[in-house]
Amino acid sequence: MNEKIPAVVLGATGSVGQRFVQLLNEHPWFQVIALTGSQRSIGKPYRQVCHWTLAEPMPNWAGDMVVRPSTPAAASAPLAFSALPAAEALQIEPLFAKAGSAVCSNASAFRRQPDVPILLPEVNPRHAGLVAAQRKKRDWDGCIVTNPNCSSTGLTVVLKALQDAFGVRQAVVVTLQALSGAGYPGVASMDIQDNILPWIEGEEDKVEWEPRKMLGEIQGDKINLAELTLSAHTNRVPVSDGHTACLSVALNQPAQLTQVEQVLRNYQAPEISRNLPSAPQPVIHFDPRPDRPQPRLDRMCGRGMTTVVGRLRQDPLLSLKMVVLSHNTIRGAAGGAIYNAELLYQQGMIKR
Amino acid sequence: MNEKIPAVVLGATGSVGQRFVQLLNEHPWFQVIALTGSQRSIGKPYRQVCHWTLAEPMPNWAGDMVVRPSTPAAASAPLAFSALPAAEALQIEPLFAKAGSAVCSNASAFRRQPDVPILLPEVNPRHAGLVAAQRKKRDWDGCIVTNPNCSSTGLTVVLKALQDAFGVRQAVVVTLQALSGAGYPGVASMDIQDNILPWIEGEEDKVEWEPRKMLGEIQGDKINLAELTLSAHTNRVPVSDGHTACLSVALNQPAQLTQVEQVLRNYQAPEISRNLPSAPQPVIHFDPRPDRPQPRLDRMCGRGMTTVVGRLRQDPLLSLKMVVLSHNTIRGAAGGAIYNAELLYQQGMIKR
Amino acid sequence: MNEKIPAVVLGATGSVGQRFVQLLNEHPWFQVIALTGSQRSIGKPYRQVCHWTLAEPMPNWAGDMVVRPSTPAAASAPLAFSALPAAEALQIEPLFAKAGSAVCSNASAFRRQPDVPILLPEVNPRHAGLVAAQRKKRDWDGCIVTNPNCSSTGLTVVLKALQDAFGVRQAVVVTLQALSGAGYPGVASMDIQDNILPWIEGEEDKVEWEPRKMLGEIQGDKINLAELTLSAHTNRVPVSDGHTACLSVALNQPAQLTQVEQVLRNYQAPEISRNLPSAPQPVIHFDPRPDRPQPRLDRMCGRGMTTVVGRLRQDPLLSLKMVVLSHNTIRGAAGGAIYNAELLYQQGMIKR
Amino acid sequence: MNEKIPAVVLGATGSVGQRFVQLLNEHPWFQVIALTGSQRSIGKPYRQVCHWTLAEPMPNWAGDMVVRPSTPAAASAPLAFSALPAAEALQIEPLFAKAGSAVCSNASAFRRQPDVPILLPEVNPRHAGLVAAQRKKRDWDGCIVTNPNCSSTGLTVVLKALQDAFGVRQAVVVTLQALSGAGYPGVASMDIQDNILPWIEGEEDKVEWEPRKMLGEIQGDKINLAELTLSAHTNRVPVSDGHTACLSVALNQPAQLTQVEQVLRNYQAPEISRNLPSAPQPVIHFDPRPDRPQPRLDRMCGRGMTTVVGRLRQDPLLSLKMVVLSHNTIRGAAGGAIYNAELLYQQGMIKR
Repeated sequence: MNEKIPAVVLGATGSVGQRFVQLLNEHPWFQVIALTGSQRSIGKPYRQVCHWTLAEPMPNWAGDMVVRPSTPAAASAPLAFSALPAAEALQIEPLFAKAGSAVCSNASAFRRQPDVPILLPEVNPRHAGLVAAQRKKRDWDGCIVTNPNCSSTGLTVVLKALQDAFGVRQAVVVTLQALSGAGYPGVASMDIQDNILPWIEGEEDKVEWEPRKMLGEIQGDKINLAELTLSAHTNRVPVSDGHTACLSVALNQPAQLTQVEQVLRNYQAPEISRNLPSAPQPVIHFDPRPDRPQPRLDRMCGRGMTTVVGRLRQDPLLSLKMVVLSHNTIRGAAGGAIYNAELLYQQGMIKR
Repeated sequence: MNEKIPAVVLGATGSVGQRFVQLLNEHPWFQVIALTGSQRSIGKPYRQVCHWTLAEPMPNWAGDMVVRPSTPAAASAPLAFSALPAAEALQIEPLFAKAGSAVCSNASAFRRQPDVPILLPEVNPRHAGLVAAQRKKRDWDGCIVTNPNCSSTGLTVVLKALQDAFGVRQAVVVTLQALSGAGYPGVASMDIQDNILPWIEGEEDKVEWEPRKMLGEIQGDKINLAELTLSAHTNRVPVSDGHTACLSVALNQPAQLTQVEQVLRNYQAPEISRNLPSAPQPVIHFDPRPDRPQPRLDRMCGRGMTTVVGRLRQDPLLSLKMVVLSHNTIRGAAGGAIYNAELLYQQGMIKR
Repeated sequence: MNEKIPAVVLGATGSVGQRFVQLLNEHPWFQVIALTGSQRSIGKPYRQVCHWTLAEPMPNWAGDMVVRPSTPAAASAPLAFSALPAAEALQIEPLFAKAGSAVCSNASAFRRQPDVPILLPEVNPRHAGLVAAQRKKRDWDGCIVTNPNCSSTGLTVVLKALQDAFGVRQAVVVTLQALSGAGYPGVASMDIQDNILPWIEGEEDKVEWEPRKMLGEIQGDKINLAELTLSAHTNRVPVSDGHTACLSVALNQPAQLTQVEQVLRNYQAPEISRNLPSAPQPVIHFDPRPDRPQPRLDRMCGRGMTTVVGRLRQDPLLSLKMVVLSHNTIRGAAGGAIYNAELLYQQGMIKR
Repeated sequence: MNEKIPAVVLGATGSVGQRFVQLLNEHPWFQVIALTGSQRSIGKPYRQVCHWTLAEPMPNWAGDMVVRPSTPAAASAPLAFSALPAAEALQIEPLFAKAGSAVCSNASAFRRQPDVPILLPEVNPRHAGLVAAQRKKRDWDGCIVTNPNCSSTGLTVVLKALQDAFGVRQAVVVTLQALSGAGYPGVASMDIQDNILPWIEGEEDKVEWEPRKMLGEIQGDKINLAELTLSAHTNRVPVSDGHTACLSVALNQPAQLTQVEQVLRNYQAPEISRNLPSAPQPVIHFDPRPDRPQPRLDRMCGRGMTTVVGRLRQDPLLSLKMVVLSHNTIRGAAGGAIYNAELLYQQGMIKR
């Protein structure tokens, strides 16, 4: 590669925006050339307006950048990473797609559009094929692809491995989600100190629907949702990073626990996305210890991109029980969108 | 009542033992006359050997008591509350029952014995009838009755209300359990700081079995387990007190959410246990707010004896989803055992 | 008393406002007749607009009240409790004082005014005497009295006891302050999860100045600040309620630890404020255990009104070291303002 | 260097022992050849007996090692890192020193011995000179050198910089210490949930004495304690890693804040220890932001070896106030001992 692809981060001052900045630091293929923010930040150095909440220090190049408006006129680039809130994403992302940017979005705004893929490159890279129809239908030079909700992410990786091997019919998933998933300032400390919040607005609908799209078959211009019924409870817990999910799943075929363990351990991303820079190594880490995974100890597995599974056991009601852990702002948000961008670049879908 | 019933607390220095002491302070019917402890505590004042972890201050009468051995010779009384660990309970509780004490035990040691009831007075007071057979079979003057595991408690109260109204076939329950449930020192702080522990040894078996016994029918000398399949995931979370459970349940009959809400709101304890001193008022508190129940805010509902339910909604897979909260060391442990003792006393089953 | 004094709570929806509502529930002398709030709340039931974060349930009479604007026209009463933010208090409290209300304010807005007392009835009830001059100077029928900052409260109680007995010259105080002190939403959970915040804006100035005023002598129309140099570090810690302070203090006279302990144990409020309904019983609780006070266990001492002291020891540099704990939203805020109101009422300074 | 120096980790299964293993993974100079543990671990693989609580995964070479007894016969090496508890260190470390090992100890057992240095290579590398006298006096081929208590570490680095520039006369230090400093299982979660512990046994004595030895002058065979009076309060807070200290310090000369800032920013380790592999880069990181340092965000500064200072301001009582942060199990324990070993090796004091 001669030169890196110029990229802009939309909504760079928030919690996911910061992760984009941190993970794109010294990325082998992409180079951030602009950061955008809201009215109160525009025209000021990122260092001054961003309340950085990551332990990794803010890169100097980012701190020095002057925050720009979220418009193609102010911040054009072949590649745009979007950490915008859903309502803004709905307005702004199409402008960038129209102007030629490949928009890799973490927002939920377009996930339910039939011509917009929800991508996990280790699960459904072929869904990127929707982009052709999307461009045609919407008359865009660029495109929008999305990554799923952070709590759908690890879950879907596991369901994909099980689906391929045994078929999956039903799943009950109960999440224990980290604070960083709510952005900043997000959850008030008084609401979560010595407490659990048993409700995250809009989250259960996403968890019950998004995996069905990602596990569905692409057929021509559209995706047939997978035949799979999901039931979700989503909770907020006092953990900084890392979403834990308790999963009960009904398979189409009987399966021994040792078989299931092998299937999870051996699951590989499709050839095309296996060796991308952000590809999780391994895709799934299976931990046989009885008390794992745990967010504090396991969230950074595979640099935060690996899905960690443990506590596999028989379920008296469905087929299997297990616990799934995934880093919500890396694999479940910014890291996932970057992995998506790598897939698009690999497939020649980013236009310099 | 002329005089209060003398009572001994077995294993009084631990976490549940302390709750017994605190809740029995100024109890209208029972008076603590002795506290027992392990070898290192015997002969010393309770104040000195007990690492009191409750916010309510230690009663002075308790602080002054000299801790005794856990033997009927050293600490005989018509009523014994047991906060012993399971292995010790197995040896010690029968000695007290033999010596004539009504043992109200929080230990799991005897819960699976066919002639020992697991009692929740608001659910299955008739199961106390097993005591007659127990006395005969074991040649005891006293008896042993148990309360369920803290994570089975709120769950079973809710299942009972639903069973009576609609029949219950299946349930998936995922718990988020408080630290006090593990006793003291219990969970190491390094294991739970910024973390979730997805495993509590032996807990899931209890949650999948105990409700079936409590919801079963007593028939002569035994209980027929309820026809109900339970699947449990149990987690430890950084919360001091109050177990939260995410419950999905399949009913035998279709039910509207408004009907279910009415059933829960109107659920009453059987006549016999409705007005006992520790009876929860109300048995179930239904909270319609979308983000309730929460442990920090709701655990002390009904002085910690009430089961709090919220987030009632349809389940795409089973019939209903909801969240259940119960105070684990009050309703789920010491308070429950005291309520059981009140039931026994009411029924003339405690021999002075 | 024939009838209770009507009272209004200004800024009732916030964190301190809620404490006022909770503590005034069934107050023997005062009755809340109106709750005020900001634009977004006015005209709506308190239940609907208040994000109640206390474990004690919201009283029904409060939930039903329709929130009014913070103006004397809309919410006049002989007694006004102010939980307003400082900037609003500066504008609004004088309007109520002018209209005849005795304003008992938790806000910092007027604390530095020479004619406005900062009152702790167990410390300086005579400072209430400033009110006469205040009324004259400002031509008010009512008045404004304030309670100190929550982190100055327990500290000042202890310094007063030491000052009376030994004289106090210098003090270094380092606070570990609870989350509820920052109001709601206050501290973002991401900022305090697994973390300490070593800075609270404006707090150190208050801690270094307010005790000097409260410990000063009233002379005619003004207070001579106490000759006392204070140095403060203020920190936010992940604790829900209860401010801990590590205190090193230099006395004017040498003192044995046993003497100091006696002085603290025996400290009494001045006669006039000793038996008011909210008077702390005792004023200071001295705990000799090496690891106390602790916020979770000791904050509710004396129904949250008592100052708890422990870990008394020699200081190699100044004279004494000790740890002081005080409930920040009860003694340090709403409870303190109510205690102030009781003092005013006792002294005939509230005009029906 | 042809070959790495063989090293043994004494007490490798505990919290600090684990840090030794993790930090020595791929160390450029040292190679772990043996791990020792207590009776219950001996003869079993480290993986099986070590309850690993670090987020960094256990190195495979360590997991495979069979734990040995803590005797020179079983685990001899030119270099021994000791993570033993103080009582065991007192017995065991001399055996290794006698047998020729250079013992770099984290234990407090020998810190107060006149011929045993407490070393911080960026502060007092010349104190390593005590080893010659130690060997002679005790007839050892090896030696014992110690690192200070974790809460003395960052404090002493800062005091050294100030001492060199302005002279230091007095200091008040109040610590907010992380859970990992108490080892494992250490602090019970019930003791620290929603709480602060204002007491750490024995800790204040160490903080008030150890800096005086490290800042003292070596004179022949002994060290003259620095003329400096310290007063300490030590607290445990719910933070996983990173000790925060609020420091007030009296200088011998007046100093402007800007001068002090420059002195801290420019402080360098003595030439001899400046470029060792574990040398902090920089020694002190000065952060000008008003709300820093914070443990979650700043503890890994300089790979956990840097001392972070912020909130520099005038002190009304002494000269300066500031906040100091240091990673307690890296700079303050295992990393510090490794840095010490590097210093000894550099000076030819480790005998192969």
